[in-house]
Amino acid sequence: MVSTAEAMEVIRRGADEILTEEALVKKLGGGRPLKIKAGFDPTAPDLHLGHTVLINKLRQFQELGHEVLFLIGDFTAMIGDPTGKSTTRPPLSRDEVLENAKTYEHQVFKILDAEKTTVLFNSTWMSEMRAADLIQLSARHTVARMLERDDFSKRYKGGHSISIHEFLYPLVQGYDSVAIKADVELGGTDQKFNLLVGRQLQESYGQEPQVALTMPILEGLDGVQKMSKSLRNYIGITDQPEEMFGKLMSISDDLMWRYFELLSFKSLPEIEKLRADVDGGLNPRDVKVLLCIEIVERFHGRKAALAANDNFIARFRQGAVPDEMPELNLTSDGNGLPIANLLKDANMVSSTSEALRMIKQGAVRINGERIEDKSLICASGSSEIYQVGKRRFARISID
Amino acid sequence: MVSTAEAMEVIRRGADEILTEEALVKKLGGGRPLKIKAGFDPTAPDLHLGHTVLINKLRQFQELGHEVLFLIGDFTAMIGDPTGKSTTRPPLSRDEVLENAKTYEHQVFKILDAEKTTVLFNSTWMSEMRAADLIQLSARHTVARMLERDDFSKRYKGGHSISIHEFLYPLVQGYDSVAIKADVELGGTDQKFNLLVGRQLQESYGQEPQVALTMPILEGLDGVQKMSKSLRNYIGITDQPEEMFGKLMSISDDLMWRYFELLSFKSLPEIEKLRADVDGGLNPRDVKVLLCIEIVERFHGRKAALAANDNFIARFRQGAVPDEMPELNLTSDGNGLPIANLLKDANMVSSTSEALRMIKQGAVRINGERIEDKSLICASGSSEIYQVGKRRFARISID
Repeated sequence: MVSTAEAMEVIRRGADEILTEEALVKKLGGGRPLKIKAGFDPTAPDLHLGHTVLINKLRQFQELGHEVLFLIGDFTAMIGDPTGKSTTRPPLSRDEVLENAKTYEHQVFKILDAEKTTVLFNSTWMSEMRAADLIQLSARHTVARMLERDDFSKRYKGGHSISIHEFLYPLVQGYDSVAIKADVELGGTDQKFNLLVGRQLQESYGQEPQVALTMPILEGLDGVQKMSKSLRNYIGITDQPEEMFGKLMSISDDLMWRYFELLSFKSLPEIEKLRADVDGGLNPRDVKVLLCIEIVERFHGRKAALAANDNFIARFRQGAVPDEMPELNLTSDGNGLPIANLLKDANMVSSTSEALRMIKQGAVRINGERIEDKSLICASGSSEIYQVGKRRFARISID
Repeated sequence: MVSTAEAMEVIRRGADEILTEEALVKKLGGGRPLKIKAGFDPTAPDLHLGHTVLINKLRQFQELGHEVLFLIGDFTAMIGDPTGKSTTRPPLSRDEVLENAKTYEHQVFKILDAEKTTVLFNSTWMSEMRAADLIQLSARHTVARMLERDDFSKRYKGGHSISIHEFLYPLVQGYDSVAIKADVELGGTDQKFNLLVGRQLQESYGQEPQVALTMPILEGLDGVQKMSKSLRNYIGITDQPEEMFGKLMSISDDLMWRYFELLSFKSLPEIEKLRADVDGGLNPRDVKVLLCIEIVERFHGRKAALAANDNFIARFRQGAVPDEMPELNLTSDGNGLPIANLLKDANMVSSTSEALRMIKQGAVRINGERIEDKSLICASGSSEIYQVGKRRFARISID
């Protein structure tokens, strides 16, 4: 058993806000396992490392003896987008929800302890709820407070339409906390408003309000924008070991420490020790290797992680990727750049036709991978190591 | 069978707005009986003449061969005020709703043809509705449009709280039109927004939108403020014949013509004829008597109406109420005035002690009724004929 003070230190690690610390200390001091709620969207079960920031925090709560309620918000997803405006979000069937839930479990149980995790679906209570109950629920929140939410506020002031059902979704999400009597709810900083709705509703239903704990949104490989699939600056947790290892090795040293804080299971004192070593002269790349091995091991096992390390060494170190190389930033207006133009803009070739010739000869690599597609578009938001022939290297970020 | 043009003339009488006349003409031309919806609040079954403006219009539709759907909005009333802010509106039980419905029927069937009236309760469909359906429903309307409603707009701008369920009630009311496939909905001018929500929802559910017909809010006996119980300027439809007759006789000549338009079942040509007679020298009081007899007869029968007329003549004409008398307006800051102060302020007595003495002697009357209570408070908003002794008369309105 750890003391409440020790537990608080673990919980505070990387957290953006804890509302309130006092309430959390009190709950931790109660001696019973707390119910830690985190809500997940059933439409996007394909997780990347950004999502795991939250899941890692859930794991810490489990290690401290608490119970994780992994809540899949299938009720709203089964309604779909009733406005019919979004063609990308058709309603999910019950079978699709269950299928997605399995995919989630498969992915998150690489981090979470399945024994201390309860997977819940909010349709369990919400599909039983009558219109009259929803009206009662909606009486507990005001229009003005809802319009204070950042995105609503911007849309309202900007004259963009907000459908009334959009005001109901945060209430449904908040009611989930009432239904499961959550002690703590975790979410990204962008979820803070919704987490507070949960607090307020619990109080209004006579429950002790949950503690709202927000985790920062993880930066992607570029170190600037949030990790996201559409920005192509992400590492999927189902990415292959070599790809995962290579992408992680490409991050800056600053970002490496951020990833240690939010992604590594090493304790803070261990991480401090590594920092001291680097300050004392250790090559940061050697520390980065430790992070890469830890992360790849988490999702693919120890053997695959070590193999990925060997492979990386073989491809890059032995293939003479230099420790130092030019760092460039190119502008693409958000549309990405064709590989041939990129290489010319970066002065790695003298013309786009040279670029195309080099690609044809198999002499162009991105992160050590040979490029065959002459019309490849290098994505806006990406940051990769480009190589032409044996000698020309550059790390190029694209705006 | 009347022509559509003739029907439109009847329907237009006294109406504030018809949205749209074109659509109504088209529906009338369809040859089938139309479904005419009017919603009523189950918490206030004690009707006054102001409420009958709408009911009279429903009657006109019945006379034109259409079907009245008398819709009691019991669903929301059974929820009550979920905010708990209003102590005056506890939720109604099913039994109370049915009891109130009976009272309504007892009252409105003095005007409406029971054979052509269907009494409906919106709980029939709304209590079956699930939260998911209400979310779907609420997706069909926007926050911005709801905030355009006058009262919401004022409250939002004034920083007064609007609970989110208040946005759902107009949708529920509008959905009633969908559920019953209303062709026309009648309401007071203050209901225009809600009637238009009904139109919009019907369209969104693939139905031909209802025609919204608004009727003006009837002025009370003072001719200025709307008829209302709390302003004490009303005539309840269960008021006794003499009281009803006396109150109606107290209205101004201008207001009399307004009441003819909105309350009398005489045709417009008949009313025009009466106007011409008055212009030709007929005493307006004689025309007012016709209105009084008609209205009292409606609620108490012919015999009682004629008896009330005789009684009025006995008390007032033969008791020498003059045709002309001073008209005064006194200010009370909304709190009303004690009778003794009122008589002194109106110079009908020289002191409050004279007033009290006259009351004791039975020499003070209001609308011909002897006053015995020395501490009577004359209500703010009232307009009555006061009499001291045999000669002193005044019509006094109180602000």
